Parts: sequence; C-alpha cells; structure tokens
Amino acid sequence: MMKNVLIIGCGLLGSSLLRKIIKKKIAKKVFVFEKLKKNITKIKKLKLPCVIVKKLEDAVSKSDLIIFCTPMSEYKKIILKINKYLMPRQIITDVGSSKLKSAAIIKKNLKKKIFWTSSHPIAGSEVSGPEHGKENLFENKWCILIKDKKTNSIHLKKLNSFWKKIGSKTTFMDSEKHDKIFSITSHLPHLIAYNLVKSAQDFEKKQKYDLIKYSAGGLRDFSRIAASNEIMWRDIFFDNRKNVSKAIDLFIKNLKEFKNDINSKKNKSILNKLSQTKKVRSKIIKLKQDTNKPDFGRN
Amino acid sequence: MMKNVLIIGCGLLGSSLLRKIIKKKIAKKVFVFEKLKKNITKIKKLKLPCVIVKKLEDAVSKSDLIIFCTPMSEYKKIILKINKYLMPRQIITDVGSSKLKSAAIIKKNLKKKIFWTSSHPIAGSEVSGPEHGKENLFENKWCILIKDKKTNSIHLKKLNSFWKKIGSKTTFMDSEKHDKIFSITSHLPHLIAYNLVKSAQDFEKKQKYDLIKYSAGGLRDFSRIAASNEIMWRDIFFDNRKNVSKAIDLFIKNLKEFKNDINSKKNKSILNKLSQTKKVRSKIIKLKQDTNKPDFGRN
Repeated sequence: MMKNVLIIGCGLLGSSLLRKIIKKKIAKKVFVFEKLKKNITKIKKLKLPCVIVKKLEDAVSKSDLIIFCTPMSEYKKIILKINKYLMPRQIITDVGSSKLKSAAIIKKNLKKKIFWTSSHPIAGSEVSGPEHGKENLFENKWCILIKDKKTNSIHLKKLNSFWKKIGSKTTFMDSEKHDKIFSITSHLPHLIAYNLVKSAQDFEKKQKYDLIKYSAGGLRDFSRIAASNEIMWRDIFFDNRKNVSKAIDLFIKNLKEFKNDINSKKNKSILNKLSQTKKVRSKIIKLKQDTNKPDFGRN
Repeated sequence: MMKNVLIIGCGLLGSSLLRKIIKKKIAKKVFVFEKLKKNITKIKKLKLPCVIVKKLEDAVSKSDLIIFCTPMSEYKKIILKINKYLMPRQIITDVGSSKLKSAAIIKKNLKKKIFWTSSHPIAGSEVSGPEHGKENLFENKWCILIKDKKTNSIHLKKLNSFWKKIGSKTTFMDSEKHDKIFSITSHLPHLIAYNLVKSAQDFEKKQKYDLIKYSAGGLRDFSRIAASNEIMWRDIFFDNRKNVSKAIDLFIKNLKEFKNDINSKKNKSILNKLSQTKKVRSKIIKLKQDTNKPDFGRN
C-alpha cells in the first residue's frame, strides 16, 4: 500500500481515480489539487474522501505517486511550479490522450533526474466534472502505458501494478505508435462527430428547417460524442495534429470515393464497402469492446 | 378496426408492425409476404401472429391496408406484380427512408386511379430480420407522412390515424423537404460511420497495427451504426444521391476548415466550433430525442 497519492485536476477522470484508490485501499491518503472553484465546491459537497490542498507545493513532496488529470495544455505550468519539490523516487504520470507532444514538453521542462511515466486509460464519457466520476470507470478498460527509450523500467513496473489494482487491463507501446493508433480510433471519430453536428447546424441555418427534432435517425448518436469537453479535445487535436491531419486526409479520400460510387451508382463497389465494415464490428464485439445487444435508441 | 392488413417484407420493421397491429387489435388479420426463406423459417419458429402468403395476389385484393417494408429497390417489381389486383379504396404505404425517387417509380408504374400514401417511421436499429422486431419499436418515435400535391387527403387522414394507433408521433411534409432533412440527420451520419470504419480498416492494413481492440475511444460507436443493413443503405444512398452528395460536399468543406484550424492552431476558432455543437446536444435532449444520461460505453 502506498502512503500518499496526489491527483492534480479532479474532474471526471481524477475523481474516478480518487474514488477507486480509497475504495480499494491502494493508498492511505489522496491529496487533490483543483484549480476550479466550482469543482472544489462539488468535491466538498460530494464528500469525496480526499485532502484538498490549496498549494501544490504542500502535497508534492509528501506523495509517492503524482497523477496529472488536467487538460494537457496545463502540464508545462504545473511542472514549472512543482519542479523543485520533485524527487527521483516518485512515480509521476498523467492520463492524457496524446503523447508525443506532451513528452517533448515534459522533457524540456521537467527537472533533471526526475522520471515521468505516461499512461492513457481508454475510459471516459461525454460528461465532465467530479460529480460524474465513478469508481468503476476503469474496470476492464485498457490502459496504455508508454514505454519509450528513456522510460524508467522500475517506475513502469510500479505504475503497471497501480493500474491493475485500479481494474484496468494494461498494455505497453511507445508514444509514436500510441499517437498513430489513437488518431484513428479516437481522435478522428471525435473530430468527425463535431464536424457532422456543425454541418447539421450550418444546413439548418441555411434551409431554415427545424431538423434537430428528427435526429433519432443517426445524428443523435454523433451529438452525444460531440458534447465532450472542448478544452480537452482542443489540446488533443493540437498536440496530435500531425497524425490527425493524415487521418483527415485518408477520411476525405475515402469519402470522395464513396460519393463517386453513389453518383455513378456503382452497385458492386458500394455493397462491398457497406458489408466489409461489418467485419470490424464483429471483431469489436469479439474483443469485448462493445456488446452485440441491438441499440434502438435510449428512452 | 380494419379487417386485413398485408405486410410485404417482414424484417425488422415489418415484423414490428405486425406485432403491434395484432397486440393493439388494429386489424383482424395480417397477411405477410416474405421473399427470403430464412425469414419465413424464423417467422414460423417465432410463431408470429400472421398468415404467410406464398403468392402476393392472394392477399392483395383482400387487404384494406398494404404496407411495403422491403428495400426500396424492390418496389417496382412488386408494384408490377400486384397492379391488377389493386383497388382505389385501399391504403397503400411504405416505410422507406427516401421519398423523391420512389415517388417517381411509383408514379410511373402504379396503375391509374390507385393511391400511394408514403410514410417514414424514424425507428430502427443496426440489426435486421424478424427476430429483432418488437411491438414498441415505434412508440413515441416520429413518423413522417408525405403530403405531396397529388396525395389523397382521405387516405392520408386514415394513414395518420393508423400510425398514431401504432404509437408514433406524426408530422407531415413533402417529399422534397423530407429528402433534404434526412440527408443531413440520417443519411450523412450513416455514410460517415461507414466511411470512418473503412478508413480505420485501411489504416490498419497499411500500418499493420492491431488497433480494433482500442476502439472504445470512439470508433466503437461508429462501428455499431456501420453494421446496418447494406441493401437498405445502398438503396437510400442511390435514391437520395442528389441531397447526399450536397451533404458530403458541405461536410468536406467543414472538415477542411477544421483541419486548417488544427494545423494553424487557431485557438479561438476551434474552441468556438467545439463548444457550439453543445447547443445541438441540449436541443436534442430537450426535444426528447435522447436522454442526458451519461454514456460510459456498454458492458
């Protein structure tokens, strides 16, 4: 059992970690640093089992594990603030969704001889804030642990054991591979959802049709995804822009082919496209990333 | 209470209608014509309360209401087969998802003095087949009734009353408006989902990364939508290709702007885009097209 954990940023992910750490007795005490007053009020009201610290410095030197759960654009500022209190034995990690860019920021700003071991739990929701956190958020979900050339292998081992206690399935990959994979499985889907909803808004304005009320035919599901936190997603899109940009190009290329199939009524080609995608679905269900329970919309 | 209803095509929608019609005693008897042997076997095994007819002609002249629940590409062939048995008093309708093109096919092929009154219930799922049908599929869902210049107003009134008994909320619009609205709220979202899954497949092949197992970060939800019936969606994309094509153009234009914002790190512009879309989400929830219950993935 660890003695103290410090969670920096106590929103959906931070508060879920906090709940699980205490529930499973992974650490004796959890310090929480949270910038937003409205979140502090919520944490107090919810009586989350933690010590809220007003100054980061107070908690840093007392903690065995420090977890960054803030938007990635906050990392630099916080690192510069806590640098002098950090010790080589401390496990420092984050839960950010893109890795190459933050690795560069960390490398540039983190004090020498201090180790950062990055993680990315594939868990979340379209809602944010500590009131939506839940202790089983990470249960049976993947957590990617980043293993780059300079990763400290002892810290990595300890962090792996931490995430397993949290309930996650863990796997290792380097930052570059991580950012490529998630540009396709997560970043592009979110961008596409935002873009679809924006296109519907533009269309509604232009046509003056009241179309949102007929959104049950597909738009609805995208609008949920496009309700995710804008600061978090801006940071992801900016940080992983090289891969996201390539993913957009591939998507547009394929979409133009689809359009061509439709306009030229290419029967064989379109049926091939529309049925091939079922294979991915089968695989997703086989890998237990979703259930095969039919979805008829939520009532 | 009607005497007899004929359902042509007994898949997800046809079998759901059948179940509800009998449950609510909307008609005494339901005739079912189904082309696929595997579906007939399922209907018999499920003991669905209907009379399966082997020849359409047998049931057509006996029915007060005839509902086409087949893919739209089947309409012409069926119309030509049943034309001579049709009578002006009969209500003939369909549940197809695009209207302009099928209206033209109907106009060209349907016997003179026979009326077709088209409907489009906004209900469905990614699964198909009679085993997935359910009596409450249409409950509180919109059903669009098509009111064009030549629509028979008595038939329209009767059909409206039918759908209300089925449990739907009804509304009226012309084919042109219908096809424009649903090109954005339904056809484009499905096309985008298919295209996203295809892009992920292409990427996986090229990079030789095993990425499907990390699909919980967004791709998963699109893969569900992209598992919908390929014949039905081919017909929709082909029939409504004029509007779908325009919708694709608008989507690509917006996506390129997004890409530009990301590559040039245009902070204000991207935050504006990412937060504006929340308004659509609020509206969808207010209009009860979805719940505001957070989604953490389905276990």
